[in-house]
Amino acid sequence: MKHALNVTREQDFAAWYQAVITEADLAEESGVRGCMVIRPWGYGIWERIQRLLDDRIKATGHENCYFPLFIPLSYFEKEAEHVDGFAKEMAVVTHHRLVADGKGGLTPDPEAKLEEPLVVRPTSETVIGTAFSRWVQSWRDLPVLINQWANVVRWEMRTRMFLRTAEFLWQEGHTAHATAEEAQGETLKMLEVYREFAETCLGLHVIAGEKPENERFPGAVATYSIEAMMQDGKALQAGTSHFLGTNFAHAQNIRFQNAEGQFEHANTTSWGVSTRMIGGVIMVHGDDDGLRVPPAIAPWQVVIVPMLRDAPEDEPLIAYCRELQASLARQTALGEPVRALLDLKPAKAANKRWGWVKKGAPVIIEVGGRDMAGGNVSVVRRDRLYRGDGKLDSAVVAKDDFVGEVGATLADIQAALLAQSTEKLRAAIVPVEDWAGVEAHFASGVKNPGWVDVRWSKPTGDALEAVVQRLKGLKLTIRNAPLGQTGCDDGPCVFTGAPAVERVLIGRAY
Amino acid sequence: MKHALNVTREQDFAAWYQAVITEADLAEESGVRGCMVIRPWGYGIWERIQRLLDDRIKATGHENCYFPLFIPLSYFEKEAEHVDGFAKEMAVVTHHRLVADGKGGLTPDPEAKLEEPLVVRPTSETVIGTAFSRWVQSWRDLPVLINQWANVVRWEMRTRMFLRTAEFLWQEGHTAHATAEEAQGETLKMLEVYREFAETCLGLHVIAGEKPENERFPGAVATYSIEAMMQDGKALQAGTSHFLGTNFAHAQNIRFQNAEGQFEHANTTSWGVSTRMIGGVIMVHGDDDGLRVPPAIAPWQVVIVPMLRDAPEDEPLIAYCRELQASLARQTALGEPVRALLDLKPAKAANKRWGWVKKGAPVIIEVGGRDMAGGNVSVVRRDRLYRGDGKLDSAVVAKDDFVGEVGATLADIQAALLAQSTEKLRAAIVPVEDWAGVEAHFASGVKNPGWVDVRWSKPTGDALEAVVQRLKGLKLTIRNAPLGQTGCDDGPCVFTGAPAVERVLIGRAY
Repeated sequence: MKHALNVTREQDFAAWYQAVITEADLAEESGVRGCMVIRPWGYGIWERIQRLLDDRIKATGHENCYFPLFIPLSYFEKEAEHVDGFAKEMAVVTHHRLVADGKGGLTPDPEAKLEEPLVVRPTSETVIGTAFSRWVQSWRDLPVLINQWANVVRWEMRTRMFLRTAEFLWQEGHTAHATAEEAQGETLKMLEVYREFAETCLGLHVIAGEKPENERFPGAVATYSIEAMMQDGKALQAGTSHFLGTNFAHAQNIRFQNAEGQFEHANTTSWGVSTRMIGGVIMVHGDDDGLRVPPAIAPWQVVIVPMLRDAPEDEPLIAYCRELQASLARQTALGEPVRALLDLKPAKAANKRWGWVKKGAPVIIEVGGRDMAGGNVSVVRRDRLYRGDGKLDSAVVAKDDFVGEVGATLADIQAALLAQSTEKLRAAIVPVEDWAGVEAHFASGVKNPGWVDVRWSKPTGDALEAVVQRLKGLKLTIRNAPLGQTGCDDGPCVFTGAPAVERVLIGRAY
Repeated sequence: MKHALNVTREQDFAAWYQAVITEADLAEESGVRGCMVIRPWGYGIWERIQRLLDDRIKATGHENCYFPLFIPLSYFEKEAEHVDGFAKEMAVVTHHRLVADGKGGLTPDPEAKLEEPLVVRPTSETVIGTAFSRWVQSWRDLPVLINQWANVVRWEMRTRMFLRTAEFLWQEGHTAHATAEEAQGETLKMLEVYREFAETCLGLHVIAGEKPENERFPGAVATYSIEAMMQDGKALQAGTSHFLGTNFAHAQNIRFQNAEGQFEHANTTSWGVSTRMIGGVIMVHGDDDGLRVPPAIAPWQVVIVPMLRDAPEDEPLIAYCRELQASLARQTALGEPVRALLDLKPAKAANKRWGWVKKGAPVIIEVGGRDMAGGNVSVVRRDRLYRGDGKLDSAVVAKDDFVGEVGATLADIQAALLAQSTEKLRAAIVPVEDWAGVEAHFASGVKNPGWVDVRWSKPTGDALEAVVQRLKGLKLTIRNAPLGQTGCDDGPCVFTGAPAVERVLIGRAY
């Protein structure tokens, strides 16, 4: 069977991923090392993610702010003292002027060297913590619940579009609380916001859980994640939430006077998701014909392609399509007005149809003269593109029926994508009882080994490091210990043989 | 009469401006040179501006994209050749790693020096133009209509919050067209979008017009602006739109094959507004009690302050206020659901009231036990804070009446702020017939000299430079030549004495 992409998931998953990004016009190389251009369809998906997640962040009481792109070097010196795993690969601004180099080019002006270099923010903990130390004086000032949508830069050696780029877009929430309990509650509340958002909006069934000690954000008391299952069986960490205790408050002097007049350090949290989520959407929902965008985050949910002939009869056809577009915009799907586009670009209708298939518009409508004459439209659902006989499943439907049902249709597609994600995730998680079983599972050479679900004794320090090294030999990592476990006293740890205390998921990861 | 700020506009306009920013919690110094922290109330206003302007940018057919923060030095070398007025004050990234300096601090790693320095984007013409050269091959690819919301950095020596900061937030539109006429039309269309947006949403009466040649964006064929009148009589350029002809297309090789198969260079445009607009809103609508935010861009349009006593009777009062908040949220104002906040922060009601006065919430509702007993609310309108006798104008109104009229009330406040802006602008523009009149006007020493409206012959080159220098002696600049003039053959140019061709506005500016 022929597909719209010239490489399949089965043939070469990495090449397929890149092909989807290119063919769906999501992003492209920018000519700047490690940075991508996010094209309108990719950025439109990001805008939908922003809108829907921002609503949730605000509904849970957070306010958006904006903090500087540049962070003075000295702020990191404070953190470097404080944090062992301090990452040093960062973009450093050292000059504030360019001058002619005398050879027809430009060069940083030696006269304009900064006294203190500025780091392009890799994350804003230090600069936001410094603001919190100004804002928080009394218990009355707590909690502080803020969020920032911003670009950040991490100098990655190997980059891959959406998954790992030098510059990426994200939101970072930062909060300060009077008690550890409240901060811990906030950490889990935002993890649940992410889980529910991934499920409801992205159609991604994810596993929310606690990361092992070795995977904690440097300086965090506990780090939680949502982990998604890609179609090649690898995990993608799609969002994290950190309980920072008073560690950052000590480093940044975030103190308050409690109701009894005593000074205490605040407990803080931070949590974030990024454009990486789009990589997850591609690798979960994409197929050999390109991307399939869940309707909730599709910039256009219904795309209307008229079969134009560059002739006078085009005019009534366009009028018919415009009326259809207007009728659709008055309908509601997933709680919002339907987003319908009329594609009038000068290109052949068949090429436009396949373009929208590759982009993954949830519903593609074709309208020709015969459709119009019968008061019909031809409907292609992107989530079920082919009939049993391998032909494109294009159904002729009365226009008014299509309009009346569009809300239900889009909701159905959204649900179908989630159901497929759930099914793939469940099928690819295998309980394993002992280390030999883990080795056998991942040594089997199957293309999609998925994850294993094992008991462990939650070792720490050197004992944990030994486990991490053993897993590294198989290119594996502990993804997380799923929340909501009801205890695990029915067997030994697969690593240490000691009594297990919980179950963890293990797999390969992006 | 006592006011909420401790400095008035009359006493010291610059100090007053800074006081509004601080007391309204709009922004604060960040500890990073020239960069500010935009606090929730200030950022909330920016989010409203983004939402309303973005709707208009999309409604006119543009799509959002995202381009890299970093631009390789070589891109500017190309532009530096091409553009005379090339600005060289820019933040330059030269290293990608920090290492310990052996003295307990960190330093850029000499081993991690970039082969080619990267410039933090001051604007994205070069990197977007490079993308356009990839995207545009045929007339079928035109027009390209894109926009970007982003942070940009310009290394300003003297900074002032919102008006001129090293880092600021903006949108930059970039388009490419097949013909000069179409690109010129786009330039004026987006100028009109800005004008209408400023009027409808910001309540700012602005003058749209063409900048003189000496104020053109380097490389532009024509630059247009909207100019707003501040309460001290200075102008604020609040948005610009540039017709770039084929100048940038030549430099960046944006070429297409026309319908006849011949290669042509595209005509391009660019246009932008920034967080600077918030500075304009402050200086037009602010008064001696703080900011007054037009309802269309107010994060919260109605703020409810219950008179809590930390006692059991608070409970029914809070319930009464919650019901009010919910009723308001079901109402519509200016085409959107009303945004109502219930302020339950632990502070005295009077302090909270004055806090919201200083922030400029359009309507402040106070509810005490007596109001509740009578089914009433006490209403303060921020646009008419005091009665004739100088006392706070707080009106007791039946709650249901207030709710039923809230849409009309907010529309009335929006209209009142615009009307005041229009009146102030009109009153502060004076027609002047000759150069002596210009000198006399600005030498008079009045605090608010406003602008003068004069005839000129639109000199170019050296003759224009002589005019610019003459004006500079009085700290004046030509703001723009208003659009829609119907000719100007009724007298001589105030500068050259030659026959005038149009009228221009002259004033001091931020």
